[in-house]
Amino acid sequence: MTPRFAARMARVEPNAIGELLALGADPAIISFGGGYPDPTLFPAEELEAVFSEIIRAPGGLAMQYAPSDGLPRLREQVASLMTADGTPCGAEDVLILQGSQQGLDFAAKMMVNPGDVIVTEDPTFLGARIAFDPSEPAYAAIPMDAEGMRMDILEEVLRETPHARMVYTIPEFQNPTGVTLSVERRRRLIELANAHDLIVLEDTPYRQIRFEGSHLPTLKSMDTEGRVIHLGSFSKVLVPGLRVGWAVASRPLLDKLKLLKVAADTQTSTLNMAAASLFLDRYDLSEHVAKLRAAYRRKKDVMLDAMRRHFPQEVSATDPDGGLFTWATFPDGFDATAFMRDVALPEARVAYVPGGSFFPVTERPNFARFNYSAQSEARIEEGIAALGAALKAHA
Amino acid sequence: MTPRFAARMARVEPNAIGELLALGADPAIISFGGGYPDPTLFPAEELEAVFSEIIRAPGGLAMQYAPSDGLPRLREQVASLMTADGTPCGAEDVLILQGSQQGLDFAAKMMVNPGDVIVTEDPTFLGARIAFDPSEPAYAAIPMDAEGMRMDILEEVLRETPHARMVYTIPEFQNPTGVTLSVERRRRLIELANAHDLIVLEDTPYRQIRFEGSHLPTLKSMDTEGRVIHLGSFSKVLVPGLRVGWAVASRPLLDKLKLLKVAADTQTSTLNMAAASLFLDRYDLSEHVAKLRAAYRRKKDVMLDAMRRHFPQEVSATDPDGGLFTWATFPDGFDATAFMRDVALPEARVAYVPGGSFFPVTERPNFARFNYSAQSEARIEEGIAALGAALKAHA
Repeated sequence: MTPRFAARMARVEPNAIGELLALGADPAIISFGGGYPDPTLFPAEELEAVFSEIIRAPGGLAMQYAPSDGLPRLREQVASLMTADGTPCGAEDVLILQGSQQGLDFAAKMMVNPGDVIVTEDPTFLGARIAFDPSEPAYAAIPMDAEGMRMDILEEVLRETPHARMVYTIPEFQNPTGVTLSVERRRRLIELANAHDLIVLEDTPYRQIRFEGSHLPTLKSMDTEGRVIHLGSFSKVLVPGLRVGWAVASRPLLDKLKLLKVAADTQTSTLNMAAASLFLDRYDLSEHVAKLRAAYRRKKDVMLDAMRRHFPQEVSATDPDGGLFTWATFPDGFDATAFMRDVALPEARVAYVPGGSFFPVTERPNFARFNYSAQSEARIEEGIAALGAALKAHA
Repeated sequence: MTPRFAARMARVEPNAIGELLALGADPAIISFGGGYPDPTLFPAEELEAVFSEIIRAPGGLAMQYAPSDGLPRLREQVASLMTADGTPCGAEDVLILQGSQQGLDFAAKMMVNPGDVIVTEDPTFLGARIAFDPSEPAYAAIPMDAEGMRMDILEEVLRETPHARMVYTIPEFQNPTGVTLSVERRRRLIELANAHDLIVLEDTPYRQIRFEGSHLPTLKSMDTEGRVIHLGSFSKVLVPGLRVGWAVASRPLLDKLKLLKVAADTQTSTLNMAAASLFLDRYDLSEHVAKLRAAYRRKKDVMLDAMRRHFPQEVSATDPDGGLFTWATFPDGFDATAFMRDVALPEARVAYVPGGSFFPVTERPNFARFNYSAQSEARIEEGIAALGAALKAHA
């Protein structure tokens, strides 16, 4: 192993992920830990019909090799979805990826040399840092409020950070906080990116899962200089097991992303691209998404209502307009990791994600991420009640 | 874009690949160009049943997220296949990949710093170079004869190449030559790797497609110091559209490969892993592979027989013991690229892969790779006859 590689890899924290997956798998624990969609809402019958049809189709094309940038029909369909969502683009602007996670890896490889600074929200998605870390970036983490990343602080930080290369953001229902970036701040972010020669990496896995209000314009739709790499995914609106996501970017960036795709894995699974494509042809995705929105909204309401009734008054939680997560703030001095290990898991039999690992620069112990999509409404009530009792008993 | 990235990417040659895919798609051309398996041999009925069963299974697990290193049951099954094939290992030694192509990318990322030398066969698989190139290696290409890579020349080259890090080999029915590495040379390769502190990257996509003779031991099974990264794939024995491959390696290497998997794309498609796994449970893979072997052997015989009858006497071609390719040698002064562009495509309506791009260091113009798996026996006869007539007319 090269010494440089060892240094790169030492920065990756796989255990956090592994432990969470392990927790989610223990049926005796009510886990609010993962970011899993509700499997009872998977369109199983439709997918069964779709796989059957693509496998039976004459010529076996869905089982064969396919172009590296994705099946042409699926790229068209993604472009139509994006256009209908207010981000006009064509098939030639779309690259199909192995989940949007692959876009995080590619963006860092493309834009970041060792020591370059990636700017993120504070806190931010752990999986993004895992994808970025092998490129050996430094991080600047920008505090958030109810309107998302604070642009006044970003402006200050950029003034003092000549090596800033890329701003990573989840504008809607952010992971882990559930917060949405306001329209004014989106505008300001684009201005700052233009002024400081930055790439904006826009990650939108939860965008369609909106409970109320109308869709805000994507950063890509506001992009005046071809600086935004937009990432989307079918993981939350269809099923994660497909691993089909996409990037939309300006031609020079997309051309380079395509080269990285050829080098990385040749292509995304033909079967899965063909299945996503035929699903979009045969069924009404927006109708399916409307069902998801209603169900997740009810679950979010059940969780927040249960937190209000069962948690000590000094614990607060965000009320997201969509997505899968709420972010709880505990009093100063509370250690969410220790409490989970010592009390929540052994006594309450409940798991959440302690917030520490979401902070790229300075960990803060008194936060936790709660997922409400994976558990039934009854289990949400039961788990939050048990956790609330444990919090009160040990406060 | 960083200047360093631009330099890296400039070395990648996507057009060669893109053009070949385009040729394979034109039905008016008889293409011996791609490396496609025969779609009429795909186990479509079985895969339809398998997808149906995994999608219907209660809990929706096949559609949900899965562990990064792969579904545990599939890792067990791959370990059993490897063990039965003479390479004893357990599930804990197996990492599931997005096709074995992903293993090529990871191995280079893990082992190669800019300027380090990757040793390959001369010629070698173009897709491997595309995966390696972003790591900015230098190449040393070792001539082959009927027993594969020449170990006497490798020994000489290693003596003069202190920065050699990794030897990449396709030991069985090599792409593009169809040649198999002899047992004696396998032993010698392991000795040289031990003596020179090298990693051996063993790529075995065609291993199961053997027409005659018995399986030779894998390099991994001869590995005395944990230096071999073995890559396998279901692309040729099931279907390429699944994109399911694997790595088997010693624990320290496998642990690092697992970290790269989490960073690169989180996981291979759950649906495709579950489908491969259930196929192995429900059906007899070796029976299916026996059918493939018989069919591809017939096609190989048809192609070589047609070449003997139709090609000018001074053109020779390898007679592989398995796999998908034969490698033709034309007289000195013949330019296979110019002939394809000026004669083979416009007049004979036949495509092959001009050999030049398979040579990592010094291109040689008078070679071509012919694939016999994708076309029917009748089209093989027709295409080789047309090409032979064109060769004779323009000689």
